[in-house]
Amino acid sequence: MDGSYLIGGQRRTSAQTFQGIEAATGQALPGDFAVTTPEDLALACTLAEQAFDHFRETAPETRATFLETIATALEKRSEAIVARAMLESGLPQGRLNGELGRTTGQLRLFASVVREGDWAGVVIDKALPERAPLPRPDLRSRQIPVGPVAVFGASNFPLAFSVAGGDTASALAAGCPVVVKAHPAHPGTSLLVGQAIAEAVEQCSLPSGTFSLIQEPGYAMGSALVAHPAIKAVGFTGSRSGGLALMAVAAARAEPIPVYAEMSSINPVVLLPAALAARAPELGRAYVASLSLFAGQFCTNPGILIAQTGPDLDRFLAAACEALNAVPPQVMLTPGIASAYDRGIASLTENEGVQVLAAGADGTATCGGARLLVTDGNDFLADPSLTHEVFGPSSLIVRVRDTAQIAQILESLQGQLTATLHLDEADYPLAASLLPILERKAGRILANGWPTGVEVSRSMVHGGPFPATSDPRTTSVGAMAIHRFLRPVCYQAIPDAILPPALKASNPQNLPRREFD
Amino acid sequence: MDGSYLIGGQRRTSAQTFQGIEAATGQALPGDFAVTTPEDLALACTLAEQAFDHFRETAPETRATFLETIATALEKRSEAIVARAMLESGLPQGRLNGELGRTTGQLRLFASVVREGDWAGVVIDKALPERAPLPRPDLRSRQIPVGPVAVFGASNFPLAFSVAGGDTASALAAGCPVVVKAHPAHPGTSLLVGQAIAEAVEQCSLPSGTFSLIQEPGYAMGSALVAHPAIKAVGFTGSRSGGLALMAVAAARAEPIPVYAEMSSINPVVLLPAALAARAPELGRAYVASLSLFAGQFCTNPGILIAQTGPDLDRFLAAACEALNAVPPQVMLTPGIASAYDRGIASLTENEGVQVLAAGADGTATCGGARLLVTDGNDFLADPSLTHEVFGPSSLIVRVRDTAQIAQILESLQGQLTATLHLDEADYPLAASLLPILERKAGRILANGWPTGVEVSRSMVHGGPFPATSDPRTTSVGAMAIHRFLRPVCYQAIPDAILPPALKASNPQNLPRREFD
Repeated sequence: MDGSYLIGGQRRTSAQTFQGIEAATGQALPGDFAVTTPEDLALACTLAEQAFDHFRETAPETRATFLETIATALEKRSEAIVARAMLESGLPQGRLNGELGRTTGQLRLFASVVREGDWAGVVIDKALPERAPLPRPDLRSRQIPVGPVAVFGASNFPLAFSVAGGDTASALAAGCPVVVKAHPAHPGTSLLVGQAIAEAVEQCSLPSGTFSLIQEPGYAMGSALVAHPAIKAVGFTGSRSGGLALMAVAAARAEPIPVYAEMSSINPVVLLPAALAARAPELGRAYVASLSLFAGQFCTNPGILIAQTGPDLDRFLAAACEALNAVPPQVMLTPGIASAYDRGIASLTENEGVQVLAAGADGTATCGGARLLVTDGNDFLADPSLTHEVFGPSSLIVRVRDTAQIAQILESLQGQLTATLHLDEADYPLAASLLPILERKAGRILANGWPTGVEVSRSMVHGGPFPATSDPRTTSVGAMAIHRFLRPVCYQAIPDAILPPALKASNPQNLPRREFD
Repeated sequence: MDGSYLIGGQRRTSAQTFQGIEAATGQALPGDFAVTTPEDLALACTLAEQAFDHFRETAPETRATFLETIATALEKRSEAIVARAMLESGLPQGRLNGELGRTTGQLRLFASVVREGDWAGVVIDKALPERAPLPRPDLRSRQIPVGPVAVFGASNFPLAFSVAGGDTASALAAGCPVVVKAHPAHPGTSLLVGQAIAEAVEQCSLPSGTFSLIQEPGYAMGSALVAHPAIKAVGFTGSRSGGLALMAVAAARAEPIPVYAEMSSINPVVLLPAALAARAPELGRAYVASLSLFAGQFCTNPGILIAQTGPDLDRFLAAACEALNAVPPQVMLTPGIASAYDRGIASLTENEGVQVLAAGADGTATCGGARLLVTDGNDFLADPSLTHEVFGPSSLIVRVRDTAQIAQILESLQGQLTATLHLDEADYPLAASLLPILERKAGRILANGWPTGVEVSRSMVHGGPFPATSDPRTTSVGAMAIHRFLRPVCYQAIPDAILPPALKASNPQNLPRREFD
């Protein structure tokens, strides 16, 4: 690993460098990473712009093969990638192996999506030359990619939501060149993955500007990337402040562009009375397993749990507290995330309406100690600060006085990625009355499960109203993520000879079409 | 017409009033219109919010019937509507009769779209209980409406893009209650149309908050409408400054929301050499017919025409000038629009690089006089002010020295609603080389036609990159407009008993589904 960054397939270096940090120790890892210069950033964007017209008109089969080639190139490097990611993220090997599989699976899913061709959205209104009073010309539309896309790596998914993650895979699938800003928490992992993509670009004889990787420990290049006129959309997974900052840059451009920021969510979980009565202890243990999984560093971490006060809840709490007390401190992704977690917990424990119910061993400068907190429905409703996401292995239980207060609390929440109901048959009427609220608040609604664990599939929605995301019309996980990077164009009476292949009468790309008389 | 506004089906008045203006004379028309109070605006939004959960879950057949009922109610009032619209807009009877037909046709198109059900986007990932290492739960997603929508009436389509126009029709089709801010240029037309919608709401036994109509001569209530927390999306057709103002209000909300603003476009038309040689005079006459149609007050008016200097262009110009000199001044939509047109023409004629080629008789305080202007390719490229839209019966011809400059000029343009090529077979190679540029710049590309006249159909795209619109991923005309007001929600392992009808195993609404193993 030579610490260069990748501009249109070329390794480049600069005088300024930074180092990766070992998550477990907070110490610098061997290896210097060059900080991308403003000139090289601009070059990456210009090369992406130059690559666009060619790359976007590659046949679906070409793009599908490209995505599969990236997956294979990642697998070839899997040992090195996982070994480096373990050091940089503090995540264990099993998790990272699984995440690599998720990443390659994601690339292969988008290869299938590209081949199937629904994304191209071909719609044809046949010419009606005899129509009175006016004839109708031949009209045919398709979806074309929006242009070069800026992708920001996420700290908590060094593989599946970073350099070759869901944003990159869906943007490339759509036909958009991608410039990735690596997350500074895993520069080495990012470079290894970026090299795999660059290799696939070359192997598939695609324009070199199809992919670039920029590195910097701070924020200046990221803002400059979003501000660059060649960039036409942004994919981001991270903090609310980070997402809002990028949204502001994008909105202030001469040409504002869409930002798909997946930001903050506290993922309410509701225990309905019959389910709680039936299996309080199991639910308690499963709750703690979900909230503490990989130090709770998931966008879908169950940040609040809502249930009615009473003996069933007491049994749930007893089991949950026992489980949580046994959760050891876990290495967090970065020392910065560990200290932000500490501050979040401190702010909750200083809140008069909140009590600490259970606590694992205290954290350290790099590890987060698990915490379970509790408040009452009235206190929760009175203090919006209790709805702020605390990223890490903690959760806040909201004890409500009756089921009406459950609805009231759900209505009080901002947009969420997920909302979960634990329910038995006797709970159906209550659940049915809550469902419309949850539909308005969340992108995904679960029954009898836990929100951590997001299936990468055709129907998945990993999105939701603000502030869960910046754009509730979209998802960043699953096949529908491709639609973020497409826009429709209509062709009126264009001669077949010059129509793009996707729209020619002979349909050479064999795309699905909807035709109307 | 009693001059009240409509809040959830109730006629309401206030102490403050304003009057409609006769476009032809600039004089006040009889009848006072009450200015909506802030309290009533808030009430309209609250009622829309209360109506939302019921309205959005109405069966597709119910919503389709509702849209058809509005169409019928408009037809019942057509004489009164057209008569009032003639006075308020200055547009002739034939055009307004046509526009009413377009409006009812649009409502009926969306009724078909709602019945067909593709909009619901049902995707099902079947449960895979045996999958290793982890089973897959049942996952099913659908599109649900975003929430109450604010619609702003457009000055230049008092029917088809105002109270019951395309934005309203597509939002209601999606299941969103609508609060319309009437355009102050046609308060009487707006009220008559609003009464038709309110009647349909009642006739179909829908919640009264499904529709409200607010009126004011200024901007305060419009901004307050976009800022109201109950509103979740905005549809707007109008000026760039107006669209940008609403975008800023929407972005500054605690919960930012999407604004679909269709703003400004100069709709480049390119005459390719063989087509120009073959039919210069016909093209010249057709160009003037398009640019002067209804005083050129179309978003798709051909604002610039690009062609190569030479004898063929001279023949084109001769025919165009002859036609334009004969264009009489035409009543414009409002005295304000007439004076803005005068200012736009004055600014062009004062520009050293621009010459007036032809002129109809001078305009008046309410009428616009047709103008044909010309500049050279180099001057055009050097002065971005020449790309500003001048709304009215004028167009700027850009004489280029060679075909390479055509590409250069097209690349220099901002986003457009349309781009047009006039071409013969000998022009195909050149046209094919320009097409990728046009795809990046415009929402609709035409051959051998004129951009005015937008078909309301399945494949139509009336959209395009900024500043043509605020959101290039969308269209405001045609069936795809419904997608602006939908967002996906995924249901994970939700018991069939409480799933919404759209997703139940028995598929009671008979919606199209995509299922994946």
